[in-house]
Amino acid sequence: MTTLLDLSNFLPDSKIHNTNEAEKIKIDSVATLYQNKPNSITYVSEKSYQNDAKKSSASAILTLHGWESLFENKPVITVAHVDLALIEILNLFFPPKTPTNNRGQYIVIHPSAIIGENTEIGNFVSIAENTKIGKNCKISDGAKIASNVTIGDNSIIGPNCVLYDNVKIGKNFISFANSTIGGEGFRYIDHKTILFRVPQVGTVVIGDDVRIGSNTSIDRGGIDDTLIGDGTKIDNDVQIAHNVKIGKHVIVAGATAIAGSAVIEDYCKISGACAVGDHITLPSGTMLAGGSGIRNTPPKKDIYAGWDWNLTFMEFQKFRANVKHILNLNKIVKKIKDIEEKLGIKEQI
Amino acid sequence: MTTLLDLSNFLPDSKIHNTNEAEKIKIDSVATLYQNKPNSITYVSEKSYQNDAKKSSASAILTLHGWESLFENKPVITVAHVDLALIEILNLFFPPKTPTNNRGQYIVIHPSAIIGENTEIGNFVSIAENTKIGKNCKISDGAKIASNVTIGDNSIIGPNCVLYDNVKIGKNFISFANSTIGGEGFRYIDHKTILFRVPQVGTVVIGDDVRIGSNTSIDRGGIDDTLIGDGTKIDNDVQIAHNVKIGKHVIVAGATAIAGSAVIEDYCKISGACAVGDHITLPSGTMLAGGSGIRNTPPKKDIYAGWDWNLTFMEFQKFRANVKHILNLNKIVKKIKDIEEKLGIKEQI
Amino acid sequence: MTTLLDLSNFLPDSKIHNTNEAEKIKIDSVATLYQNKPNSITYVSEKSYQNDAKKSSASAILTLHGWESLFENKPVITVAHVDLALIEILNLFFPPKTPTNNRGQYIVIHPSAIIGENTEIGNFVSIAENTKIGKNCKISDGAKIASNVTIGDNSIIGPNCVLYDNVKIGKNFISFANSTIGGEGFRYIDHKTILFRVPQVGTVVIGDDVRIGSNTSIDRGGIDDTLIGDGTKIDNDVQIAHNVKIGKHVIVAGATAIAGSAVIEDYCKISGACAVGDHITLPSGTMLAGGSGIRNTPPKKDIYAGWDWNLTFMEFQKFRANVKHILNLNKIVKKIKDIEEKLGIKEQI
Repeated sequence: MTTLLDLSNFLPDSKIHNTNEAEKIKIDSVATLYQNKPNSITYVSEKSYQNDAKKSSASAILTLHGWESLFENKPVITVAHVDLALIEILNLFFPPKTPTNNRGQYIVIHPSAIIGENTEIGNFVSIAENTKIGKNCKISDGAKIASNVTIGDNSIIGPNCVLYDNVKIGKNFISFANSTIGGEGFRYIDHKTILFRVPQVGTVVIGDDVRIGSNTSIDRGGIDDTLIGDGTKIDNDVQIAHNVKIGKHVIVAGATAIAGSAVIEDYCKISGACAVGDHITLPSGTMLAGGSGIRNTPPKKDIYAGWDWNLTFMEFQKFRANVKHILNLNKIVKKIKDIEEKLGIKEQI
Repeated sequence: MTTLLDLSNFLPDSKIHNTNEAEKIKIDSVATLYQNKPNSITYVSEKSYQNDAKKSSASAILTLHGWESLFENKPVITVAHVDLALIEILNLFFPPKTPTNNRGQYIVIHPSAIIGENTEIGNFVSIAENTKIGKNCKISDGAKIASNVTIGDNSIIGPNCVLYDNVKIGKNFISFANSTIGGEGFRYIDHKTILFRVPQVGTVVIGDDVRIGSNTSIDRGGIDDTLIGDGTKIDNDVQIAHNVKIGKHVIVAGATAIAGSAVIEDYCKISGACAVGDHITLPSGTMLAGGSGIRNTPPKKDIYAGWDWNLTFMEFQKFRANVKHILNLNKIVKKIKDIEEKLGIKEQI
Repeated sequence: MTTLLDLSNFLPDSKIHNTNEAEKIKIDSVATLYQNKPNSITYVSEKSYQNDAKKSSASAILTLHGWESLFENKPVITVAHVDLALIEILNLFFPPKTPTNNRGQYIVIHPSAIIGENTEIGNFVSIAENTKIGKNCKISDGAKIASNVTIGDNSIIGPNCVLYDNVKIGKNFISFANSTIGGEGFRYIDHKTILFRVPQVGTVVIGDDVRIGSNTSIDRGGIDDTLIGDGTKIDNDVQIAHNVKIGKHVIVAGATAIAGSAVIEDYCKISGACAVGDHITLPSGTMLAGGSGIRNTPPKKDIYAGWDWNLTFMEFQKFRANVKHILNLNKIVKKIKDIEEKLGIKEQI
């Protein structure tokens, strides 16, 4: 059983406040402010939650250095960065499973495939010729890995994921269930009304520390490759078309679609349900608000919103504030006509 | 062979009209108004289809009490609710398959898993430790069910669906193929340009009578759980992020995305291709028109449309009617300048 | 090893320019303008790439008859249609795999199923009763094919694809991984707040030469069938609801959703991330710009853009150009009030 004092020792730069009995406060879980979990720690990183935190039944509150007085008599542990400390506490209480070198049942591994040591392979997995999988990996149930694929060390391939031929994946990769990497790019030539398929002979090359959600598709390149840079995180139900180049440490949230040959430079953050047009470039650090569309390369790094209107998020908020006037544009036009008539100005529109 | 008279006996409150020979009119199928199917019954629940129904080659028409005279000499059977009667007739002619207690080939069931009686398990299924599946269920080919999962009686898990650890599902559940329940929520902390993964230790808790389409993802909660209430129906290609709370009897149509921690209260109806922002609440009974986005909690229950504009559907229709004026705003602005000049008003914009 | 001369012989109507030693120029691959691949051919079909092509390290350039002088001393091969020639060259250097009549491991084929000659079946495949698969097909690893399905000759079913009962597919079909064909349509009747499921007893009927991407869903019809016409190509992450009728040679790009009973006539081109409303008809040859929504049948064939605003793409561009004025509508309204006041016009809005 962990105590608040143990947690304090576990988090080197933390401090305990509002209690002299930290060694008696038992903590064995993490709770939101609204869960009634005994022996739990909760966390506050915005002052607006001060009152909810005071009412919480958690045994202690994790918050920022200097905020300890916000919570009156509640035991508090303060740190320099709440979210990073929370990650450490969660990993303490819920340690991630480590791969074993188990083999599941009903697996089909080509004799030429190379599997690293301590890599776990689930049930119903196929691994085709010349594929190389690193060490300490987990290939989950039902994953289908085609030929000449490379997967780096410490990677997890989710259940029922499909990796097509030649896909290259770096270290520390994670994918969740039912995702497809390396399916064929969508390019057809319309000639005399018949659609001719252009062979797609590139592949997908993924850097280190990349994460892919569930039910996501990443197409292979047409001639050169589709690229996903180091540290990039992609959510569920995302569509990434052929020849897209995504840089490093990029966020792509759920249900977003990125069209062919788009370039997403490093540190971009694309919210959910966005649509990024083909052959455009999002400059490094660009952000898209949720549900936005963008069909032209924006002039510079900024936060964009709306549907291909070149509006920054601040401008989009002005748009929103003016929407009610759009509903009256017919009356506005009528008023102008009346004024023009009164002034004897000749009609132009 | 069923006759119109048999159907009338099968539907207790129905009445036959326009024929004296209902026992001679054979009906063994259901047809749309435009299918040429012999021995079929068709159905009309809007008067605008009156003429199409008269031309239909169906042997009889199912419609509302009091509408029998709309179809001249066509045999008609009237009921209080056309769609509910149609459901009963469809179930009569196309009885749903009932599960057997068959076991498919190549299945991997952990010895600690508990499978209820009369539950059918397809081929290539894995069921991990401590999972409990109710009775009269069907686990379809290729389903992968992880550890500590609970599935209630009379449930169907579609082919190749993946259920991650700890997911809890009520009775009478149905999912269609290639859906993922309990994949990891998407939360990363950006610290000095590195994206740190926040462990997601909640799960997904699903009530009774819930339906999930194909290729849909429902993420597990971060600390507490993602919730789907009783009677809620979710379509294909839907993305439901971590900590979303969906109430009872909610509709979520295809290709909609719901961002993290959104609350969708009971009886909401979300049409297809919508985007619901994170941490907002849709009040009970709220409807979203197809293709709408919403990023702020709306002030009250209503039908909303547009992209985060706080427009009701009626207001959106006024927006649409005024769009043509937006195309001329440059000219409108010019006219105002001309008027101001003529009047000697000093330029302000 | 292929030479430029060999390529010229391979492409009957081609001509070589800017070199007298075509038999010495070795070509064994295709490159983009920016890849540094030795012994490769690159291609130019827009004059704006003239300078990039001159700088390219490719050994020869494929371009249009008459454009040979654009590239100075670079060896050039000209043709009547660059993209069609490119397809032929790609198929020469990267010949598609042909199916064998191999059988994978762990397969479950019902004795009543009929499999055509020279059809390859991967690992972990199930094929249920009365299903008929043509010759020269490939059924990839993990595909689950239910009962009474028909698949025409020369078809490829991608890994982990699921085909429900009764689906009919023509010749030369391709699907990529994790797609679902024939899942249940989404129709519920809301009666006294309970949602009643309407049985979906139609199926999906797909013509010849159709292509489906990965993670795509096509629902079966309610009473009659969902239809996909000959030559139609559908991308990844597409949602096609019940009773949709798609004509011939239609393009549907990634992440698009088509709602129930919509009709997409022949030769339509729907870009990515579009939403098409239920029960509407897109006239033959209609195009939708990326990220567009359409909820009403458009008056005629055209290119449409925007969200249900009846705007052609040309009009949408005028909309975009005027968006900045929307941000000032409050000031415009104020100006009109000031003018009205000055003129003594009585306030109306």
